[in-house]
Amino acid sequence: MSRRDTIEVPNPLHTLRVMGRFVRRQVKRSGSMPGTLVHTGEKKMDRVRLRVLDYDPSGLREAEVAMPEELWALRDTATTSWINVDGLHDLDLISRFGEQFRLHPLVLEDLVHVGQRPKHEEYDDYDYIVLPMLTWDVERGIVQDEQLSLVVGPHWVVTFQEREGDVFEPVRERLRAEKGRIRARGADYLAYALIDAVVDRYFEVLEKVGDRTEELELEALDDPGPDMMPRLHQLKRELVVLRRAVWPVRDLLDGLVEGESTHVTDETRVFFRDVYDHAMQVIETVEALRDVVSGAIDLYLSTVAHRTNEVMKVLTIMASIFIPLTFMAGIYGMNFEHMPELHLPWAYPVLWVAMLAVAGGMVMWFRRRGWL
Amino acid sequence: MSRRDTIEVPNPLHTLRVMGRFVRRQVKRSGSMPGTLVHTGEKKMDRVRLRVLDYDPSGLREAEVAMPEELWALRDTATTSWINVDGLHDLDLISRFGEQFRLHPLVLEDLVHVGQRPKHEEYDDYDYIVLPMLTWDVERGIVQDEQLSLVVGPHWVVTFQEREGDVFEPVRERLRAEKGRIRARGADYLAYALIDAVVDRYFEVLEKVGDRTEELELEALDDPGPDMMPRLHQLKRELVVLRRAVWPVRDLLDGLVEGESTHVTDETRVFFRDVYDHAMQVIETVEALRDVVSGAIDLYLSTVAHRTNEVMKVLTIMASIFIPLTFMAGIYGMNFEHMPELHLPWAYPVLWVAMLAVAGGMVMWFRRRGWL
Amino acid sequence: MSRRDTIEVPNPLHTLRVMGRFVRRQVKRSGSMPGTLVHTGEKKMDRVRLRVLDYDPSGLREAEVAMPEELWALRDTATTSWINVDGLHDLDLISRFGEQFRLHPLVLEDLVHVGQRPKHEEYDDYDYIVLPMLTWDVERGIVQDEQLSLVVGPHWVVTFQEREGDVFEPVRERLRAEKGRIRARGADYLAYALIDAVVDRYFEVLEKVGDRTEELELEALDDPGPDMMPRLHQLKRELVVLRRAVWPVRDLLDGLVEGESTHVTDETRVFFRDVYDHAMQVIETVEALRDVVSGAIDLYLSTVAHRTNEVMKVLTIMASIFIPLTFMAGIYGMNFEHMPELHLPWAYPVLWVAMLAVAGGMVMWFRRRGWL
Amino acid sequence: MSRRDTIEVPNPLHTLRVMGRFVRRQVKRSGSMPGTLVHTGEKKMDRVRLRVLDYDPSGLREAEVAMPEELWALRDTATTSWINVDGLHDLDLISRFGEQFRLHPLVLEDLVHVGQRPKHEEYDDYDYIVLPMLTWDVERGIVQDEQLSLVVGPHWVVTFQEREGDVFEPVRERLRAEKGRIRARGADYLAYALIDAVVDRYFEVLEKVGDRTEELELEALDDPGPDMMPRLHQLKRELVVLRRAVWPVRDLLDGLVEGESTHVTDETRVFFRDVYDHAMQVIETVEALRDVVSGAIDLYLSTVAHRTNEVMKVLTIMASIFIPLTFMAGIYGMNFEHMPELHLPWAYPVLWVAMLAVAGGMVMWFRRRGWL
Amino acid sequence: MSRRDTIEVPNPLHTLRVMGRFVRRQVKRSGSMPGTLVHTGEKKMDRVRLRVLDYDPSGLREAEVAMPEELWALRDTATTSWINVDGLHDLDLISRFGEQFRLHPLVLEDLVHVGQRPKHEEYDDYDYIVLPMLTWDVERGIVQDEQLSLVVGPHWVVTFQEREGDVFEPVRERLRAEKGRIRARGADYLAYALIDAVVDRYFEVLEKVGDRTEELELEALDDPGPDMMPRLHQLKRELVVLRRAVWPVRDLLDGLVEGESTHVTDETRVFFRDVYDHAMQVIETVEALRDVVSGAIDLYLSTVAHRTNEVMKVLTIMASIFIPLTFMAGIYGMNFEHMPELHLPWAYPVLWVAMLAVAGGMVMWFRRRGWL
Repeated sequence: MSRRDTIEVPNPLHTLRVMGRFVRRQVKRSGSMPGTLVHTGEKKMDRVRLRVLDYDPSGLREAEVAMPEELWALRDTATTSWINVDGLHDLDLISRFGEQFRLHPLVLEDLVHVGQRPKHEEYDDYDYIVLPMLTWDVERGIVQDEQLSLVVGPHWVVTFQEREGDVFEPVRERLRAEKGRIRARGADYLAYALIDAVVDRYFEVLEKVGDRTEELELEALDDPGPDMMPRLHQLKRELVVLRRAVWPVRDLLDGLVEGESTHVTDETRVFFRDVYDHAMQVIETVEALRDVVSGAIDLYLSTVAHRTNEVMKVLTIMASIFIPLTFMAGIYGMNFEHMPELHLPWAYPVLWVAMLAVAGGMVMWFRRRGWL
Repeated sequence: MSRRDTIEVPNPLHTLRVMGRFVRRQVKRSGSMPGTLVHTGEKKMDRVRLRVLDYDPSGLREAEVAMPEELWALRDTATTSWINVDGLHDLDLISRFGEQFRLHPLVLEDLVHVGQRPKHEEYDDYDYIVLPMLTWDVERGIVQDEQLSLVVGPHWVVTFQEREGDVFEPVRERLRAEKGRIRARGADYLAYALIDAVVDRYFEVLEKVGDRTEELELEALDDPGPDMMPRLHQLKRELVVLRRAVWPVRDLLDGLVEGESTHVTDETRVFFRDVYDHAMQVIETVEALRDVVSGAIDLYLSTVAHRTNEVMKVLTIMASIFIPLTFMAGIYGMNFEHMPELHLPWAYPVLWVAMLAVAGGMVMWFRRRGWL
Repeated sequence: MSRRDTIEVPNPLHTLRVMGRFVRRQVKRSGSMPGTLVHTGEKKMDRVRLRVLDYDPSGLREAEVAMPEELWALRDTATTSWINVDGLHDLDLISRFGEQFRLHPLVLEDLVHVGQRPKHEEYDDYDYIVLPMLTWDVERGIVQDEQLSLVVGPHWVVTFQEREGDVFEPVRERLRAEKGRIRARGADYLAYALIDAVVDRYFEVLEKVGDRTEELELEALDDPGPDMMPRLHQLKRELVVLRRAVWPVRDLLDGLVEGESTHVTDETRVFFRDVYDHAMQVIETVEALRDVVSGAIDLYLSTVAHRTNEVMKVLTIMASIFIPLTFMAGIYGMNFEHMPELHLPWAYPVLWVAMLAVAGGMVMWFRRRGWL
Repeated sequence: MSRRDTIEVPNPLHTLRVMGRFVRRQVKRSGSMPGTLVHTGEKKMDRVRLRVLDYDPSGLREAEVAMPEELWALRDTATTSWINVDGLHDLDLISRFGEQFRLHPLVLEDLVHVGQRPKHEEYDDYDYIVLPMLTWDVERGIVQDEQLSLVVGPHWVVTFQEREGDVFEPVRERLRAEKGRIRARGADYLAYALIDAVVDRYFEVLEKVGDRTEELELEALDDPGPDMMPRLHQLKRELVVLRRAVWPVRDLLDGLVEGESTHVTDETRVFFRDVYDHAMQVIETVEALRDVVSGAIDLYLSTVAHRTNEVMKVLTIMASIFIPLTFMAGIYGMNFEHMPELHLPWAYPVLWVAMLAVAGGMVMWFRRRGWL
Repeated sequence: MSRRDTIEVPNPLHTLRVMGRFVRRQVKRSGSMPGTLVHTGEKKMDRVRLRVLDYDPSGLREAEVAMPEELWALRDTATTSWINVDGLHDLDLISRFGEQFRLHPLVLEDLVHVGQRPKHEEYDDYDYIVLPMLTWDVERGIVQDEQLSLVVGPHWVVTFQEREGDVFEPVRERLRAEKGRIRARGADYLAYALIDAVVDRYFEVLEKVGDRTEELELEALDDPGPDMMPRLHQLKRELVVLRRAVWPVRDLLDGLVEGESTHVTDETRVFFRDVYDHAMQVIETVEALRDVVSGAIDLYLSTVAHRTNEVMKVLTIMASIFIPLTFMAGIYGMNFEHMPELHLPWAYPVLWVAMLAVAGGMVMWFRRRGWL
């Protein structure tokens, strides 16, 4: 029989994850001046890596540079440049980068102060977009997020990531292979392609969460142990995390579709409409999964209630049959001097018959009530 | 007595259906370039079938063609043409079709990438409309959906379906019979007639879901077994699926009524207002059914609670009556040498009287409390 | 003791009522052409009845006509005419009527296809208004609805009802008695007076539902039987039905107050504002009653839980007192040869004292815990 | 032990209060012509009382008049006049009043037909405002409301109350004492001062409801009896009543702040913004109290569940310890001829040791599970 | 075993805190004239303290003055002045202050009447902003609030606090150190810096609430005692308090971002957008924590239900095994003269075998059902 302390949660509960990294970090930063660069993520890489992809329909150049100052030239050329920054801990480098591209101090602050709400802000020379890259941590069964910042200028896009390894490899392949005329379309289309790649990855997370939901749902039906509820609770919280991450992405994309940004051409807006639809799919799926998990919790609770009912029935049936019989046996175990029945030769068999009749009557009565 | 493993769900749970086919498929597609044609449905037919209905008030021609290039001529004639495409797996054919009708790459992608959110998008030359055709799978007790895409141009409508067999036969009949002057009204009215036929079919699904709801509701009252809750849970999820399918249809139609499309005349808008009302009826019915199913779950849980209560009462009554009596019998079963009562001749009958009095007292007390 | 099969619901459950008549009927109609007249109500009268009330400040004429063609003359006179049509099954008559008054095919369809959502649609020559007349079916304890259609033209109002007998008698009286200058105010004011009479009747239904709510609420406190929950569930569903009927009426009236209709003068708009307020009262009352019924369900469930608790206490007290005593008696019922206590003369009274002490101790302990 | 019928609710349930007085009354009125004066409140006074306060910065005159015709002169003077009408049952007087001040028939109807939704309606010459004066009926533990109507003209304000005794005494004092330059500010400021006094009184009701909430909350923790739930349920309904009364007041004030009325100057609008903030405070407090009461219900239910658990534990411990012991005693109470143990001299003490061991083992096992 | 009265709540419940200080205080003030200064906070300091920070890019002067009249000179200089008022109980001083800065009587009233809703009001010469400074009272486990009022003029900002000690020290440091060019940016930027400091502090409160949530969540899993529910209930109420405090802050900041104030330059608006994002983070975190606490309550209730189930199983198993055995022993304890079994030499061992068989059968049956 399971003891109470065997109720083990498969993963430690991470309530504070629900609060997001931002809250935790904001406390440490508290009091510093706006525009101060404080990197609030963990240092995930040794060295910040700056990679450049510079292209136009006629050609494509890839390079890796060491100093942000080397990027200056790219800023005003007619070719489209994609500069990818992996790692945010080198605040001096980020700050020099900001000077080169004349980024607003608040943009620089948000870049390094990870855990921002997804948002789109328009500045005179560029658009600043933040959105989370989500992955499913199989081992711990939780959703992980990494902050992606995009700065979209007239002929260049800069992306900032917390660590190496991203979801952009297919975009790079398309640029190299000149598939779909991506090279001819300019920086706003590149921004679209990158955001599309990020949102596409959300579906993968959803699929994993969906698999886990189904797993728990089947278990809730089949053999719900005492650790069922903590696990459903944890899944529900992961959905809270997901929901919180994805809703603002929708607003962000809605703004881009509605033409809030002057850097996005009408032609590209059609494409953003497509990503917007995908984001809506993600949101609707998260909401639907919430409904399903809530239902699974009800299912589990009703199974527990049903089992208690079953247990009670067994007890009631056993007790109701044998307690009267024991009483009958008790009667004739008494030591009164004057109990005429004790001396009748057929008394014992008659009592057996009576006992069987009582037991049979109870059984029939239980059967009529549908308990047997 | 039912064992735990007899809790069988009539149909396997399909949590992932709640997520929609799109999510599942999107994961596979992930990373491919926008505009890439990837058919994500199952191949449901051998060959794509292209059927043409070309008409004006004076006449109607039906034909089946093999090559999309044969449709070119129809595109710019004054007659209204309805081209129906059954089957989406022949990507080459779809892509040649797209070239003929100058469809945007994103439209082509959405056409074949089934499981889209219902939506209406306006392009310069045509409107693109996606909405689901819903049917009730009696055997598995679930809602099935098939993606219908409409491309509505000035003098032509193209419909894309995943497989043969549709809800449009009545529209074809009316075209052939020239009922209701449908032939005189142009492509936008044809689009209305087709959408109307799709939405009308939703009512059939609703009716089936309603029947099932009533069935379960009556069972929840009458004889709720342990598989009641999983079945209610499954029904609830089908309503989640339905809700998710139908809400965006309302937005789509609202857009058409409000005149978002330049291809829809004011005269036809009045008709779209009618379909919009039907869609609202569908949504309100889905919401009402959700309320009813939630109520049925409460009903079931309260029935279980009430039964536990009844079981407990039986146990309590049996135990409360017989345990004191057994104790009394136990007393006189003791073997003390000096128990004067044992030797009195009327002790035994007196004890019987006392026992009956105790039992009677308990019964009366229970009756006064309303337990008997 | 009540057996399970005694859980009788006072009225059969009507899940499908929640779906509304429209859904049921729509399925039958499915596939017919828009504008086709299909009467979906039951034939409730032998013959359609056409009654005319034609008036101006100077006089009033009442008549009953057989043919819609006789009404032609009324259409363009300066006097205000109110034509009331009782019965909708004679489609030929309705269709001839439509021709006389140049009604749009969709209007004619909606007229006879009962169970429409309440709505207001403006056409060039007239406004079309649908709203439900609600009554409380005392016998079955459910809300009944009848569709009322109003067509409001410049000098005439036509009302279509499913059967004879309506809520308009007071309006007729006022017209005949020339109370409140109703005769001087034109067709839009007549429409207001009719809608006001319909909405006023909603309060009567609310009162009945409120009475039933109070009845069940008191019963939930006093003596909740096993049929309590189904009855609360049914009441809740009636509120779902009511809510669904009344919410769109509010939108309809809001449209009229906001001046969506060109046939309603500013002077009459003030009056529609008044009906709008009444509709808001109805909606707020329905919402409040929903809250109360939900509360009553909680009340019932808590009463059941409390009773289970009481039952358990009785069992526990009885068992805890008598099981130890029975054990003590059992000890001295043993037949060991060497049990010195059995031979002591004061052993039997001492045991009684011990038993009373144990029983008394248990009683005191239970009393200290507040169980007795 | 408390019997079922001891579940007494401190106050009779008043479901129908939730519906508001209006619904009840509307049923009686049903069918009468709009503009007909039907007083739906109870006659609370013998005689309608008309009091006049006429003032300008230079002076103030108080008077009580018998006939509305005497007020005629005040209507067009430059001084500001506040006419207060206590009592609404004298319909003839109200109707003559209406003639003097040229009030719209619907205004007169709403004046006497108490239980209106709070609202603001603009007419050409004046604004009509209805809002409830709320008080807490300590004895019955419910919220009482009285309808206050304000008619605000250019130089006069008329207030209609159902009975004598109001919340306006401080305003009168300020007028008499010329505090805060109230006399210089005109009729719209007077209207503000009166509404402010009414809304201020809401806080008093809130405080009483809050006290009662706290009282029940503490009781739910301390010693929740079976009447706890009905009392929480009643409190919840009072909050439904409050909520329903206060929400429309917010809309009313929002309209005045947003400048819907042409009779309110910009200077006074600033003051209405202040009352609006107070109304928001009231609403937010009502919503917060609803949350707290819901929480208290959960608290109560969990306490009941916890107690059932405790009761079960006691039963289980008693039964699990003594039932095996009784069985052991039963064994050696058997009368078999050949039971060698019975004849061993140390059998009896050995059995006692065994019994103590079993009992001790059970106790230890329960202790390890944390039940003891 | 825990007795009922051991259910101790760690902190007394403060239902009325949910209502906010304003409600309590408003009752006392009720009836006084608008614009009357009534300080509703507690007197937290001996003397009101007036501190001035006057700066421009070239220098900074700090001073402490005794009379508001000394501030007059600062009002119209080109330098930016920040006047901080600690303590609100000296109404005469506040009122003289108001005269110097020509503040509207309603502003003065709101300043001292603490517990206002967060709001932003624009007046001709200045903006008035109220928002709460929140701190977590570790000892009592509750959220404490202090009202902060800002009056923002063209060249000056006045802040009013209830007591000394605030969150502005970092801002003062930056002003003194001329970090981030804060001195060059004017009064609107100073207002931003102050509001930013306040909102930043919210994160600290959130973190504390989050820690407590996690603590309770883990306890709900591990060893939920009877005081678990009151503690969760209290935490939930603190979230109600937080939510109520923070939501209006968002509206306030939204207004500033959207340019409702003419005193805020476009340059500074970008910074307010940043604080707005932080406020959104706070709100989303509060909502997420509400979800988590609700989940923890479900978790606790399901743990209690599961335990009851476990307790019942133990009882049922014990009773079901031993009651039949006791009955069997009882049979052969009877004293009938004619019981042939009693005289058979192998009867006793055979009975033991039978008893073991019955017990073993029960154990196996329970094992098959998964109860053992």
